[in-house]
Amino acid sequence: MPDPGPTPLPPGRPAPAPRFGAPALADALARTAAPAAAAPTGRALPTRPVLPFGTAPAAPAGPPPEHPPPPAAPAHSADALLRIVSGPSGLGTTALHWARSAEAPAVPELPAVPELPAPAASRPIPGLYHHPVPEPDPVRVEELSRRIKAWATDEVQAFPPEWEDQFDGFSVSRYMVACHPDAPTIDHLMVAARLMVAENVVDDAYCEDGATSPDVGGRLLLAHTALDPLHTTEEYRPAWEESLSSDAARRCYRSAMEYFTQLAAPSQADRFRHEMSRLHLGYLAEAAWDATEYVPEVWEYLAMRQFNNFRPCPTITDTVGGYELPAELHALPAMQRVIALAGNATTLANDLYSYMKELKSPGKHLNLPVVIAEKEGLSDKAAYLKAVEVHNDLMHAFEAESAALAAACPDPRVARFLRGVAAWVDGNHYWHASNTYRYTLPDFW
Amino acid sequence: MPDPGPTPLPPGRPAPAPRFGAPALADALARTAAPAAAAPTGRALPTRPVLPFGTAPAAPAGPPPEHPPPPAAPAHSADALLRIVSGPSGLGTTALHWARSAEAPAVPELPAVPELPAPAASRPIPGLYHHPVPEPDPVRVEELSRRIKAWATDEVQAFPPEWEDQFDGFSVSRYMVACHPDAPTIDHLMVAARLMVAENVVDDAYCEDGATSPDVGGRLLLAHTALDPLHTTEEYRPAWEESLSSDAARRCYRSAMEYFTQLAAPSQADRFRHEMSRLHLGYLAEAAWDATEYVPEVWEYLAMRQFNNFRPCPTITDTVGGYELPAELHALPAMQRVIALAGNATTLANDLYSYMKELKSPGKHLNLPVVIAEKEGLSDKAAYLKAVEVHNDLMHAFEAESAALAAACPDPRVARFLRGVAAWVDGNHYWHASNTYRYTLPDFW
Repeated sequence: MPDPGPTPLPPGRPAPAPRFGAPALADALARTAAPAAAAPTGRALPTRPVLPFGTAPAAPAGPPPEHPPPPAAPAHSADALLRIVSGPSGLGTTALHWARSAEAPAVPELPAVPELPAPAASRPIPGLYHHPVPEPDPVRVEELSRRIKAWATDEVQAFPPEWEDQFDGFSVSRYMVACHPDAPTIDHLMVAARLMVAENVVDDAYCEDGATSPDVGGRLLLAHTALDPLHTTEEYRPAWEESLSSDAARRCYRSAMEYFTQLAAPSQADRFRHEMSRLHLGYLAEAAWDATEYVPEVWEYLAMRQFNNFRPCPTITDTVGGYELPAELHALPAMQRVIALAGNATTLANDLYSYMKELKSPGKHLNLPVVIAEKEGLSDKAAYLKAVEVHNDLMHAFEAESAALAAACPDPRVARFLRGVAAWVDGNHYWHASNTYRYTLPDFW
Repeated sequence: MPDPGPTPLPPGRPAPAPRFGAPALADALARTAAPAAAAPTGRALPTRPVLPFGTAPAAPAGPPPEHPPPPAAPAHSADALLRIVSGPSGLGTTALHWARSAEAPAVPELPAVPELPAPAASRPIPGLYHHPVPEPDPVRVEELSRRIKAWATDEVQAFPPEWEDQFDGFSVSRYMVACHPDAPTIDHLMVAARLMVAENVVDDAYCEDGATSPDVGGRLLLAHTALDPLHTTEEYRPAWEESLSSDAARRCYRSAMEYFTQLAAPSQADRFRHEMSRLHLGYLAEAAWDATEYVPEVWEYLAMRQFNNFRPCPTITDTVGGYELPAELHALPAMQRVIALAGNATTLANDLYSYMKELKSPGKHLNLPVVIAEKEGLSDKAAYLKAVEVHNDLMHAFEAESAALAAACPDPRVARFLRGVAAWVDGNHYWHASNTYRYTLPDFW
């Protein structure tokens, strides 16, 4: 899992960077036009209410840029993108966040963008493309904070008493309220918060500096069975069941998953298991490189980081929002690409915010600036700034592909899911930028 | 991947062993009744013809048992099971294979079971519960053999010339024709055959004895991107694309996946990626235990083997059969349990057939008999015979849960998929029992 900062805001920039992968997208949409078109009138899904998205945050226009804007995008201008975004109709599509940019007021059909102050404590990385969010609802944050701590300490004994400061400093409740503005209840937020805590406990206990051992492959697989259960004989099942309460990692996974599956449809649970198997593959690749002191090529690092990635978190946005993106729509290659781009962008944001923290950790901790510096012979500062650009390119690609998919697949659940992923990306950035307990920025500006 | 023997047949035994997990099944079916019931009249799926299953093999009654029958099953008698199986109606449900047993003629509504001779070269493990299959169509076998070899040698250079004997001895064409009796064309069989070859090449190149290296976690992840593509920037994408042709493992994965996705719906491709990420997690757990010389508890071994498992192969049965089991039905907990039980039974059959082969390999090769002998203090023979019983228990559980699911979820696609999984299990057993090039049996009888 990515290890989930400071200065005035660079602007929201609506124009996407050069689009890549357009042929793949076109191919995907061509392959999938029939089910997408048929979806709105199709078979009833396990019903949970599809809620209006009234709590969605409105993004501010932001202060003037400190850095020059990117070159004009060759494939879509900002206006063209906004026209694409205005294509889909249906529940909540007017609130697609990527239309909420500095240029949004130029498009009359989009809602006015209120001017919101940046959160007082938020210190975004200069030049990092992002969308600010309003401060999360303090009432929700407080209630979620109380409940998630009770779960962590009383129900699953997630950490020893001496880790309490770190748990509090992680601010998981503020994090989850920021990332899931459409969660209908605290119960829904608890589902996200438990999984987030569980994922971090497993990472800390099995994978982070000093915790990795040569048998991490075996340990992670046994922990994975708390998510994806063992099916075996009566003789051997009890020992497996007992193992699920034998350490904090498995206690957290099991409990968090049990609550999750009470809320999720089977295909949402299956989706989450898949994401977690990807995450565990990513952990194991990173562990292997650490054990062999291998410094990967930049593309290899990016591949590993597509797996050791935040992706399990935004992809539960529909469960936490109380609705379901049907599996056929989730599996569309264009949707998979959007999710991957969002996950990659937000995971690299984590690399950038945790750069100083990781510099202080023992041994060489791989992150994108470190790998770029070593493999491309750049200074630390130049490598860091290049990593910012890689992140920005991925963010632009995510937004362009997301808008194109929303236009091509006018199903309100698609629009809402895409908006949920974007809200998660924005909330995740907010949390990093405002979490001064964990993160400080390098002196590169 | 499991490393994919001899004597007259023990009988097909229709009565399931004690059912385990009934509460989980009931819970699953209760949770999912609505979508299952609604499915047949629901939204149109990407259309591929649903074909009559006229080529399904009829299983013989088999010769009389050499071993005493198991104790009477407490939950279902054979008759009760057959009545359950006769419940579902729809395309092809009369051919659900688990009804084709030695006792089938006692139930008048089931078709008569023709007496087929056991394949001449088949030497099943005594006492191993299985269903014999007729010899695969030699015309299909020959044509598939020609085409898969051309793919392996000309298109992807899957192996060096000195491995040609091993490739031929693997008999992948006979294997796949036996496992996919409802494949409408050789093109469909080629999809299964390419993936099977690719999975074995990756296993041989990265994971099998002598090939495992401390960086296997990194290598497998990079290979996995040939199935689950990297989404990155224009600058780094070309190096990743080049990597996909840089070794036989990735060439095989990439090509096999490309062909597969031409035939598969997006959710079928997503399902397969999930199965492959499970497989790779299993490889990495096994590699970690090998590296640390850890001998797992029996339940731990069974957990690892649920991942390092044949499961990716039977779960493409619908794609190879030219139809689609919708993702919502595939994700049902009861369906996931059936698939896991089938995968576990058939994977343990592999442990039993490859026991002698693995005894001869360098170092200690973990398999179920070896782990039982070491952890439970049994003789090699007693451990082997106990492993046979574990296999049989899982087979009985698979059949009981499969029948219950077919009855509870009367969707013809569910029935056909379940039958396809069962056909795969049977074909896989046939291949092991008849592959005297690879396997010999211990002298335990």
